[in-house]
Amino acid sequence: MVKIVVIGQGLVATHFAVGLERLKMGSIKDYGVPLRDKLPIKYSELEIVGSYDVDDEKVGKSIYNIALKIFEKKAVPEKLREITVKRGIHLDSLKGLPFKAHGREEGRRLLDAINELVDEWRELRPDVFINVITTEPVEQIGSVDEIEERIREGKVSASQAYAYAVTKYCREARPAAFINAIPSPIANDPGFVELFKKSNCVVFGDDGATGATPLTADLLEHLAERNRRVIDIAQFNIGGNTDFLALDIPERNIMKKKTKSTIVEDILGYHVPTYIRPTGYLEPLGDKKFVAMIIEYYSFNGFKDEWYIVARINDSPALAGLLVDLVRLGKIAVDKGIYGTVYEINAFYMKNPGPKNAKAIAKTIAYRKLLERLGIIDERTM
Amino acid sequence: MVKIVVIGQGLVATHFAVGLERLKMGSIKDYGVPLRDKLPIKYSELEIVGSYDVDDEKVGKSIYNIALKIFEKKAVPEKLREITVKRGIHLDSLKGLPFKAHGREEGRRLLDAINELVDEWRELRPDVFINVITTEPVEQIGSVDEIEERIREGKVSASQAYAYAVTKYCREARPAAFINAIPSPIANDPGFVELFKKSNCVVFGDDGATGATPLTADLLEHLAERNRRVIDIAQFNIGGNTDFLALDIPERNIMKKKTKSTIVEDILGYHVPTYIRPTGYLEPLGDKKFVAMIIEYYSFNGFKDEWYIVARINDSPALAGLLVDLVRLGKIAVDKGIYGTVYEINAFYMKNPGPKNAKAIAKTIAYRKLLERLGIIDERTM
Amino acid sequence: MVKIVVIGQGLVATHFAVGLERLKMGSIKDYGVPLRDKLPIKYSELEIVGSYDVDDEKVGKSIYNIALKIFEKKAVPEKLREITVKRGIHLDSLKGLPFKAHGREEGRRLLDAINELVDEWRELRPDVFINVITTEPVEQIGSVDEIEERIREGKVSASQAYAYAVTKYCREARPAAFINAIPSPIANDPGFVELFKKSNCVVFGDDGATGATPLTADLLEHLAERNRRVIDIAQFNIGGNTDFLALDIPERNIMKKKTKSTIVEDILGYHVPTYIRPTGYLEPLGDKKFVAMIIEYYSFNGFKDEWYIVARINDSPALAGLLVDLVRLGKIAVDKGIYGTVYEINAFYMKNPGPKNAKAIAKTIAYRKLLERLGIIDERTM
Amino acid sequence: MVKIVVIGQGLVATHFAVGLERLKMGSIKDYGVPLRDKLPIKYSELEIVGSYDVDDEKVGKSIYNIALKIFEKKAVPEKLREITVKRGIHLDSLKGLPFKAHGREEGRRLLDAINELVDEWRELRPDVFINVITTEPVEQIGSVDEIEERIREGKVSASQAYAYAVTKYCREARPAAFINAIPSPIANDPGFVELFKKSNCVVFGDDGATGATPLTADLLEHLAERNRRVIDIAQFNIGGNTDFLALDIPERNIMKKKTKSTIVEDILGYHVPTYIRPTGYLEPLGDKKFVAMIIEYYSFNGFKDEWYIVARINDSPALAGLLVDLVRLGKIAVDKGIYGTVYEINAFYMKNPGPKNAKAIAKTIAYRKLLERLGIIDERTM
Repeated sequence: MVKIVVIGQGLVATHFAVGLERLKMGSIKDYGVPLRDKLPIKYSELEIVGSYDVDDEKVGKSIYNIALKIFEKKAVPEKLREITVKRGIHLDSLKGLPFKAHGREEGRRLLDAINELVDEWRELRPDVFINVITTEPVEQIGSVDEIEERIREGKVSASQAYAYAVTKYCREARPAAFINAIPSPIANDPGFVELFKKSNCVVFGDDGATGATPLTADLLEHLAERNRRVIDIAQFNIGGNTDFLALDIPERNIMKKKTKSTIVEDILGYHVPTYIRPTGYLEPLGDKKFVAMIIEYYSFNGFKDEWYIVARINDSPALAGLLVDLVRLGKIAVDKGIYGTVYEINAFYMKNPGPKNAKAIAKTIAYRKLLERLGIIDERTM
Repeated sequence: MVKIVVIGQGLVATHFAVGLERLKMGSIKDYGVPLRDKLPIKYSELEIVGSYDVDDEKVGKSIYNIALKIFEKKAVPEKLREITVKRGIHLDSLKGLPFKAHGREEGRRLLDAINELVDEWRELRPDVFINVITTEPVEQIGSVDEIEERIREGKVSASQAYAYAVTKYCREARPAAFINAIPSPIANDPGFVELFKKSNCVVFGDDGATGATPLTADLLEHLAERNRRVIDIAQFNIGGNTDFLALDIPERNIMKKKTKSTIVEDILGYHVPTYIRPTGYLEPLGDKKFVAMIIEYYSFNGFKDEWYIVARINDSPALAGLLVDLVRLGKIAVDKGIYGTVYEINAFYMKNPGPKNAKAIAKTIAYRKLLERLGIIDERTM
Repeated sequence: MVKIVVIGQGLVATHFAVGLERLKMGSIKDYGVPLRDKLPIKYSELEIVGSYDVDDEKVGKSIYNIALKIFEKKAVPEKLREITVKRGIHLDSLKGLPFKAHGREEGRRLLDAINELVDEWRELRPDVFINVITTEPVEQIGSVDEIEERIREGKVSASQAYAYAVTKYCREARPAAFINAIPSPIANDPGFVELFKKSNCVVFGDDGATGATPLTADLLEHLAERNRRVIDIAQFNIGGNTDFLALDIPERNIMKKKTKSTIVEDILGYHVPTYIRPTGYLEPLGDKKFVAMIIEYYSFNGFKDEWYIVARINDSPALAGLLVDLVRLGKIAVDKGIYGTVYEINAFYMKNPGPKNAKAIAKTIAYRKLLERLGIIDERTM
Repeated sequence: MVKIVVIGQGLVATHFAVGLERLKMGSIKDYGVPLRDKLPIKYSELEIVGSYDVDDEKVGKSIYNIALKIFEKKAVPEKLREITVKRGIHLDSLKGLPFKAHGREEGRRLLDAINELVDEWRELRPDVFINVITTEPVEQIGSVDEIEERIREGKVSASQAYAYAVTKYCREARPAAFINAIPSPIANDPGFVELFKKSNCVVFGDDGATGATPLTADLLEHLAERNRRVIDIAQFNIGGNTDFLALDIPERNIMKKKTKSTIVEDILGYHVPTYIRPTGYLEPLGDKKFVAMIIEYYSFNGFKDEWYIVARINDSPALAGLLVDLVRLGKIAVDKGIYGTVYEINAFYMKNPGPKNAKAIAKTIAYRKLLERLGIIDERTM
């Protein structure tokens, strides 16, 4: 069995939980799970054993009850009644958003809260942790010493606190994997990568590659392979889920902009004026975001072509599907004693693949590298 | 020097001639030429030495004069005054289209016309032939014997007659390459491939991969790599150039439909309902076609996403850019004594890559295979 | 009460039946019903009393059972169990389509079948007939005498036979209205309009204005009001319902092309090259069609702008919503003794508004004319 | 003759000047001029007599020289050599933008600068003033007294100072018209409207209705006329001209947001969540902006449809074309002694039609009202 702890019981975590159980029951196909049955771990071996959140509306409820707010009753597996959301670490990660949130660190030292978590995990014995809390405004820390000092002072973000807690669990109990599916720099923080390595722990991150960003990467690769010269790119994103609401707050928006800004240049090999960022929040769109994009380029003989791409994408299921691979890849890495981070995995699954300063490559190239690293053959492309 | 003969002095050939001379003069960048300066043959070594057409309006004119109808005077290199369009083989290839066309085979045996061409070429000493005549309705022949019989009877299409003439030139004079950039099955005709091989001749084909088809291939690869399940694809194309006019004639349209129909299934590995074909002719769009596409797919947990892609693409320059690579690759193959056809080249540059029954693969994968075959390194993706 | 007979129990008729009952039950809002509560007839007064079809799968079934194939059980009103589909007139209207269809005229004279229908209607006492059979290939007839002769000979289409039957019912029983929501020329046939008038009967038609055509009309009006010069228009439609399947058969497709071809010129006042037609059939799209459109125009100072419009439109509900108005307007006309046809109603609700040779106008202008004719005030626009 | 003074010699003014002279020379058609030849004033009667700007790069140059930076030499009429740009009023209207700008009010009292302008105009004898300076951050003032006080104190925006100067010119010299084609509230400022009225002066404004806003208005009207229920609207705009650069500065962006926010509700009659605002600046797009829009609505029977609209629109020519009407309408108003403002004109030509609190209506309805007010018949729609 692969025991999984989910951090942040929002839409993504709920889609992951519901989808995973339905997969195990055979009531859905494994669409959206890139490596499907090509990994040695079966879906039936995956088990969510814990869930954490700071929203007062969620803490104490079962994932089943939380899922009912999103899905029709018949789509929610009964199995999810068994997992109750526990209170996690807040550290103002939901500040400014319309939620009543409290963290278990309130009124005491952060380290005490972390130790308590580690103790809980010692019982649960998780193999993999998934971080899918709402996008938080945060900078990298940089070194192990600095991380430890700031943990002591309580001057970290929630993701950093969780990441630290996981390394502590690895040091004190057993090796594990941490999947950082949000923009906070963990796999891109040299300090954290070192800490994970030292702790017999692996981190994959940062920021799960869903939506328009990986598509854009592959479109740019298509243009680069024909030596077409990209003139400009504009990409708009608007959605109605909590993540878009969070990104309406300028300091959180900057997190995404950073993630996306260097990808274009890395793939094309030259600078292009771009306007790529999550654009706004529009409640009725819900989780199915609206993406609009223009790419203009020069073709042969000085002619200019234009592409306009419009997409409607269910944001959370896309990431949840990737997580089904990532938890398995996390377990495999740990079993093989691979600690620190794994670029080939990050490069395909993450928008901002760690370690820091790793070059962004097109996702289709990352996919080949991933298969090669894993020794998997894709008969489709032979 | 690489000596080039162009067959069909339409938009593509004219963009090729103008663009190539401008490239050599340094007045344009080499955008749209996939392998740019990575091939051992420089642009300055490429020279058009002959041009053939059957349109009475073109035969006897210089490429310079023909180019003036499309380009502003200042964009047309003086050098193109030197090449005069000669009368080619018609065999009703423009039948039903609003052109006054005559072939040099009229009033005599086809083989006599072919022999005359071969004699001309013996003088010109071309290394590479490019076939860019208007899309013609034609089926494969299948065997060398059958080809020779039908040539004797005059029961072939213009492309088949040219292809045969080129093999004759190779047998009688010197090895050469034939680039079949239109849908007529030459590289997909086992008889022709054998004939090319026996004649110390190489053919690349069929149907240059420009426009929406290679883009669609790579978009499908992107979905396949995430195990998203494609539900349906519709793709519309409309343009105002002669090729769209020709495709308005049902028996010609079928040529493109064949080209595109199996690609989807080859790439995805399962059957998908599609509607992909050149849709119509709208004169004011000119050479800058309008493409509209929908792709619907299932993501994780049973959710459905939609992509809508709209593009404006200059049709002829895109193909002309590929030809700058293909003539060089043709010469390289001949120099290395590689005869018959080369799948790795066809797979990237052609919509319907020969030999027959070769599987369609995504263009991005074909690109890697091409680089590997050629021993070229793309530092962008390292 | 307004008693309604539906001819052709396909998607539109089923959406009409389901939607109308749900409206009466208050379980849906009246979105998509243009004149809502502004007409003197309430939704509660509308009652479907009969339904006709020729598909063996439908005849003898209740609308309730037919609706279950499209809707979830909870959405289908029990009331629809009360109406059983009767066998109608076929006359090969479904020829070439994958249905097993038979008409009550088979094996006997058409006029006998018509008389039998009229007898049934004498019992049912309908006020309004709705024709929503699948698009059929048919030309106008032109004169009353010719209509009568061809009815005797059985040389008419199903729509023409039904239209004739309705006039017979009007002459022999009571005045009624005939809503011709499909492309067959009835309100555009001078012979039929005269016959309707002589029979104390009113016809509205032809071809309900849903989908991209009315939108295009209003977009063109927008451009005309700014004196922008339209250069070209291409519009593609693809869907997966029976009507798209029917339009895949060339002689049926021509029906739509005729409908749409003169609209552009009428609205703009000059000729524009266009490519506007239902483009194809793609089964998985179902009733929610995909529309893609380009409009290019010259703005001031010689500059060229482009609009690209992509839409996903539920085809059948859109028409069903218009029918909720049209049945009421039919009853009102009959009550006021207005016979023949009514241009102001056709101009707004129909793609090809009768009488013949009536000019197409933008729908927004037709809307004003409609309100004026009906004496209705729209406080929104005051 | 109609003598015109242009304030702000940017792209719009330059397109206006070039287009107008080309129109007079007959070298372009009057596309983009809504009322074309339907007004009693001919294009040949229009004459630009003065131009003002504050950009040091422009002051002292002829419009001819400024136009050369945008147009090819052959497109720029020689006549434009005759008009030299004079220094105007700055009041920090270009603050924060990358221009070296100075105003003639610098180092002295604003009123002195205004008086000097009025003296110049007394010589030039303009009939119409056009305000097309870059979008400035400014609030309405509200009353005549307050305007006068703030003019004395120099606490106004450049547009307000110009508007005041024009009224002074009207009081002291002769009646004139002021076309406020930018978002600054002048026709929407009750104080200014009163001041214009008292001064025998007419103002049209505010914010010329080009781009996506008027199109959206008419699309919403189309939906409203069918009682379709709009669920949400998102509209993105990105361009590369100075106005987009200015709108990147948050306090200027707010000007546009205000303009657009109430239109939707006015037209539909109910509140709809929207995200409509100029989104960003992308230099290579230049003056041809990229617009992307989604509109979702409920159709009949609870079904949801989606429209996606993508447009490429030349921003400045569109407004310049409207100005050719507005200067003529300004002269006609003045000749008829119509002072203050004229709602019917503003409603069609302006995004935020004055007077204050006037309801936004669809542009197509405004067009009818305009024709009616002017006694013009549009034979197209009869």
